[in-house]
Amino acid sequence: MALLVLKFGGTSVADLERIRAAAAHVKREVDAGNQCAVVVSAMGHQTDQLVTWTREAASLHDAREYDVVVSSGEQVTCGLLAIVLQAMGIPARSWLGWQIPIRTDDAHGAARILNIETDELKQRLQRGEVAVVPGFQGLSPDNRVTTLGRGGSDTSAVALAAALGAERCDIYTDVDGIYTGDPRIVPQARRMEKISYEEMLETASLGAKVLQTRSVQLAMVHQVRLLVRSSFEPADALPADGIQAGTLVCDEDEIVEQQVVSGIAYTKDEAKVTLIRVEDKPGVAARVFGPLADANINVDMIVQNVSGDGQTTDLTFTVAAVDLERALEVIKSVKGEIGYEDLRGSTDIVKVSVIGVGMRSHAGVASQMFRALSEKGINIEAISTSEIKISVLIDAAYAELAVRTLHSLYGLDSA
Amino acid sequence: MALLVLKFGGTSVADLERIRAAAAHVKREVDAGNQCAVVVSAMGHQTDQLVTWTREAASLHDAREYDVVVSSGEQVTCGLLAIVLQAMGIPARSWLGWQIPIRTDDAHGAARILNIETDELKQRLQRGEVAVVPGFQGLSPDNRVTTLGRGGSDTSAVALAAALGAERCDIYTDVDGIYTGDPRIVPQARRMEKISYEEMLETASLGAKVLQTRSVQLAMVHQVRLLVRSSFEPADALPADGIQAGTLVCDEDEIVEQQVVSGIAYTKDEAKVTLIRVEDKPGVAARVFGPLADANINVDMIVQNVSGDGQTTDLTFTVAAVDLERALEVIKSVKGEIGYEDLRGSTDIVKVSVIGVGMRSHAGVASQMFRALSEKGINIEAISTSEIKISVLIDAAYAELAVRTLHSLYGLDSA
Repeated sequence: MALLVLKFGGTSVADLERIRAAAAHVKREVDAGNQCAVVVSAMGHQTDQLVTWTREAASLHDAREYDVVVSSGEQVTCGLLAIVLQAMGIPARSWLGWQIPIRTDDAHGAARILNIETDELKQRLQRGEVAVVPGFQGLSPDNRVTTLGRGGSDTSAVALAAALGAERCDIYTDVDGIYTGDPRIVPQARRMEKISYEEMLETASLGAKVLQTRSVQLAMVHQVRLLVRSSFEPADALPADGIQAGTLVCDEDEIVEQQVVSGIAYTKDEAKVTLIRVEDKPGVAARVFGPLADANINVDMIVQNVSGDGQTTDLTFTVAAVDLERALEVIKSVKGEIGYEDLRGSTDIVKVSVIGVGMRSHAGVASQMFRALSEKGINIEAISTSEIKISVLIDAAYAELAVRTLHSLYGLDSA
Repeated sequence: MALLVLKFGGTSVADLERIRAAAAHVKREVDAGNQCAVVVSAMGHQTDQLVTWTREAASLHDAREYDVVVSSGEQVTCGLLAIVLQAMGIPARSWLGWQIPIRTDDAHGAARILNIETDELKQRLQRGEVAVVPGFQGLSPDNRVTTLGRGGSDTSAVALAAALGAERCDIYTDVDGIYTGDPRIVPQARRMEKISYEEMLETASLGAKVLQTRSVQLAMVHQVRLLVRSSFEPADALPADGIQAGTLVCDEDEIVEQQVVSGIAYTKDEAKVTLIRVEDKPGVAARVFGPLADANINVDMIVQNVSGDGQTTDLTFTVAAVDLERALEVIKSVKGEIGYEDLRGSTDIVKVSVIGVGMRSHAGVASQMFRALSEKGINIEAISTSEIKISVLIDAAYAELAVRTLHSLYGLDSA
């Protein structure tokens, strides 16, 4: 007997068949005596269609009207799931963002949740009614529809779980959990039973699409336990308490046998920019990175090498691959002020990261990593670290070799 | 300078191109100094898709959840039109049913509008802002989304025009007005400049799809002048006051040169049922029509002929063609109680009607009609009349001949 929030993403409610499968998961939890609030995304690619229409309507459009259009997708799923649940004999009703209400600020298109009123919701949950809530939407202070930005349904679910004081927030998706490495390139990768918020944050910020970074942060702040699990497994094949399925994202105190390194991640979505022979004098960094920041381009890793002549330096940094062309244009536009000999851009690189809260108390993780890569002849082009993560930039050709090597190195291979 | 409500139906907002064309009509009125509230339907066949989904979700479904799903179609159009208007430089914002609010009763799926709060709307219209309002939707007393039933957007527009005290409610559709006869079979048919509410009601109830009967009734009660016009004509080709375009549906007092007969209508959607040799005694009618009423089958015309033997009678009546099979089954199921020799059903008939408020003061319209049809050798199988309408049932093969004959007879042919 617990209060649960269940969240189903776009692929988990893509059509009526999938909505019925989602309803079967809800039914399993209800039958086990749990109180359930369900948060849903729009069906499959509905949001893409709606976004395309707003762009066709006008390239520059009022974000308040954009929100009116795109929020309709979740509204549809919400009504349909309520109907399907009722047909299964489960009392259910839809609660639109403005009905609860889910109060947000007025940053239309990327609003932040301020407050969720839960009194009536709680009363109805206690009476055994399932609440079906559209993700991604809320109500602004001046009574208009807001949306939380793409992927905002995870955030809706976590915020609702926090407001309701839910035992757990179950995120149903198209993967069955978080793995120690990408199973497509590391066949020995294992599904983690638990992962800490901090580790999940690093994993999410490295491009894992399973959970939105913002929703993990919110879960960490409010100590909402997240269970990442698959909606594609038959509902009746899973144990009623659900906890043996999926990966639990929780406080590190809840993880008894903490590994030093819990997983290996990699991302191909990076691009490298190199300025050859930049004058080596104070203020150069500001002249390079200022204009990039003005253009809303995030810079990740930065490396500066003294060049042969001692007068100039080579400056290398990474940006998201989609920003590469714009980054090169920005740098060219300020060439006069920076002064460099040549400019090069490349997407032929990957970032490989090892993640683990255990690094805090274990020295030597980084040196082990560098040695192992070196022994395989893999050149490290740049390094960045956080308290619980070490990332290296390497030639894309070595991506799989590096990930497999590190997966073995830290004892993550399944028996 | 006037306050106008403009309503655009599904074909008039079927895609972005059509929404832009609708916006151009709004712009013409704004440029002419008018205050405009715009009521929109869902894009093209969006509502059909949404209705199909609710049916797939469950054949018997909660009307409250049905309303949540299907009302989303108008919401989308509403946001898109606001964006397009803004891109044309016109201040505009969307107002969802719950935001205004448009208060209805709780008859979900077929709700009635009780009240529309217009204070803020009026203030903004006066400031020159266009209000874009989704048709078909409202808010129930317990704060849930309601819909008004199919075609309800006309009703929304008329109710809003009444609440705002609008000068006129312009219904943009895919025809350019109301004709004296169907132009496909009467090439001489003319577009009427004006038609009275009563005549429009008779025309609508005879199956003309241009305006919903309910919206015409509402317009008549609140004396809202309706202008039926085409959204497919280029906006800039129409005079700014718009009144020379389309057909104005108004009070008969506003129609100076009243014709005795204003138009000829016909419908093929009728079917004829004949019971041969029914016992001619009291109570037979109740035994026939009681069970039909119980089965929700509307009976239109009824004719009873004394048969040759003087003991029995032949009973003929018409129902909607879609109800024919069910009507025959109902009659067969009570054959024992009624007692008849044979039962026949046929859809090979049409109903031809002449309509005109002038009939009230002019005798002889009916006899002229019967004589003219007789001269063409057309046999009348049944007759029904109202104060301003005479309908006859005839063999379908004579439909076009009858309509053309009557169109000429009453002087409706264009010069």
